[in-house]
Amino acid sequence: MTGKITIKEIAKHANVGTTTVSRVLNNHPYVSDEKRRRVEQAIAALDYHPSQTARHLRGSPSGLLGFLTDDVATTPYAVDIIRGAQDVAWAHNMVLLVADSGGNARFAEAAVNVFRERAVEGIVYAAMYHRPVDLPPGLEGLPTVLANCFLENRKAPSVVPDEFYGGYQATAAAIAAGHQRVGFINLWEEDPKIAPFPAIHGRLRGYRQALEDHGIAYDETLVRYSIQTPQENYRHTSELMTLNDPPSALFCGNDKVAMNCYSALAALGLAVPEDVAVIGFDNIAHIAGGLLPALTTMQLPHYEMGRWAVQYLMGNRGKDLAPVQVALPCPLVRRESI
Amino acid sequence: MTGKITIKEIAKHANVGTTTVSRVLNNHPYVSDEKRRRVEQAIAALDYHPSQTARHLRGSPSGLLGFLTDDVATTPYAVDIIRGAQDVAWAHNMVLLVADSGGNARFAEAAVNVFRERAVEGIVYAAMYHRPVDLPPGLEGLPTVLANCFLENRKAPSVVPDEFYGGYQATAAAIAAGHQRVGFINLWEEDPKIAPFPAIHGRLRGYRQALEDHGIAYDETLVRYSIQTPQENYRHTSELMTLNDPPSALFCGNDKVAMNCYSALAALGLAVPEDVAVIGFDNIAHIAGGLLPALTTMQLPHYEMGRWAVQYLMGNRGKDLAPVQVALPCPLVRRESI
Repeated sequence: MTGKITIKEIAKHANVGTTTVSRVLNNHPYVSDEKRRRVEQAIAALDYHPSQTARHLRGSPSGLLGFLTDDVATTPYAVDIIRGAQDVAWAHNMVLLVADSGGNARFAEAAVNVFRERAVEGIVYAAMYHRPVDLPPGLEGLPTVLANCFLENRKAPSVVPDEFYGGYQATAAAIAAGHQRVGFINLWEEDPKIAPFPAIHGRLRGYRQALEDHGIAYDETLVRYSIQTPQENYRHTSELMTLNDPPSALFCGNDKVAMNCYSALAALGLAVPEDVAVIGFDNIAHIAGGLLPALTTMQLPHYEMGRWAVQYLMGNRGKDLAPVQVALPCPLVRRESI
Repeated sequence: MTGKITIKEIAKHANVGTTTVSRVLNNHPYVSDEKRRRVEQAIAALDYHPSQTARHLRGSPSGLLGFLTDDVATTPYAVDIIRGAQDVAWAHNMVLLVADSGGNARFAEAAVNVFRERAVEGIVYAAMYHRPVDLPPGLEGLPTVLANCFLENRKAPSVVPDEFYGGYQATAAAIAAGHQRVGFINLWEEDPKIAPFPAIHGRLRGYRQALEDHGIAYDETLVRYSIQTPQENYRHTSELMTLNDPPSALFCGNDKVAMNCYSALAALGLAVPEDVAVIGFDNIAHIAGGLLPALTTMQLPHYEMGRWAVQYLMGNRGKDLAPVQVALPCPLVRRESI
């Protein structure tokens, strides 16, 4: 059934020439992103799969990619990185071998061994929150792209969320809604090994820049750092709202902070968004969509990072990977809390 | 490095004989579950991997298993099914090919084709909430185990949560804490194609049985069905608590219902658990651990279902799979809300 689909049909469906389809299938670099996406979508829509035999004739060794994560389980919404990676792999008739090390270094090494045994053609290494990482040993010579993480020495390509613009846009959205005093309950974490520093520092810089660009003075009494227990999130909200000159909008470091912020505001008799606007971060669907009123928040680009990582691997097959560092936007998801 | 580990060392680590290790490695049926687990743990702890060559000499065709899900993305906490499956696959030196169809039938068929091209030795088909499913075409002759779902005709082995005992234990926990009037905000869903019927009906039966076993009359005014919007969850809570004879405990169909239940109780000036006890279902860590007070809830056995499915495949290699139907317990996770 799928064998009957021709390059011509894909070209027609994608509204491009057959040469373009051929180039995408052979990972030729001279294809625009827009056309490559249309062809990938057509390939997915038509269930086209070049036969394994044909692949081997073209010299494609295994058709496998390794996907190694540190810990999907503790931040399950980040599985969208896997979905994004899978969708692009699929369009290229590549199969993703997924291994979740659970943060265990020995497991990660063992996974790398399996990937090598199976002759994967490339690796996506994904962290479940944005941070610097050390790669497990054994990846030398294997094309590797980092998603939601990066090497301190920047020697491998990586794709991460643009924390700065996320913080900027959240703050700017509050200002655009008429708020001049915008509180910020930023994240904090005692353990430097797991502290989400790029998020903490990037979003704070964005917050400050947005204030500056709108002529609002930075007031450090409005900025809090929460170690992210429900009790601390609640306490910071209560303390901010009982200042002599309290904020009228609260930008929360993540949706869980916002959830506790809602409780603290309710206890003070303050309504969202009438009395206080609230903006979250992460867009965890269960929380953001489940709160009353539904939470306006910033989308972490998990799906897009997964896509980008595999696209970069596929677009550079057989070549050394240039260590580009890409930051993808965190768009505002507007619901009802501002 | 891993090549130096011998069966003798594994046996020593697991405190079993070398014959037992050998049997586990060759998926021999005459090994107790307890010993099999100890050997699997030792294999994982020691990073033991029999070489591909040795595997092929033993006639092991591909060392691959296919894992097909309908939609991880909308219920991300269910990725624990993948983790459980992966951990067992890993201990058997099998690699899991994970494909998420996103609920798209054409994609699911295409995934089955890829699994066949790669000569997977078995398939786990997992649904992201417990329900009857139709398998995609093309699986004929491939050993297939269903996780978190089942066939109406029960012709394939399946492992699901024990909804009845989940409902029973939640209700019994409330009664044990001294509550005689236990409200139940059960789930509902208009669309019969996606309605979580086993959860709805199984938990209701468990709720009724627990009341009966404790000599408490069933009162239908205390049972509500929520279509699971935040507004409806809130409304049902408010209505139950303003009855002439309101419940003193509320069993919620899932943690999201409980989250909105907390808001409605706060608006009525009722404290959890002093005025009203609340019990959830699902144990979504972000929500249950993030609420104030932290939510006592029932754990869906996602990880255990994934483990069971692959263990059943591995324990029956080369044999026809008996279509056993297994229901795993949903244990109570005690926090601070009862």
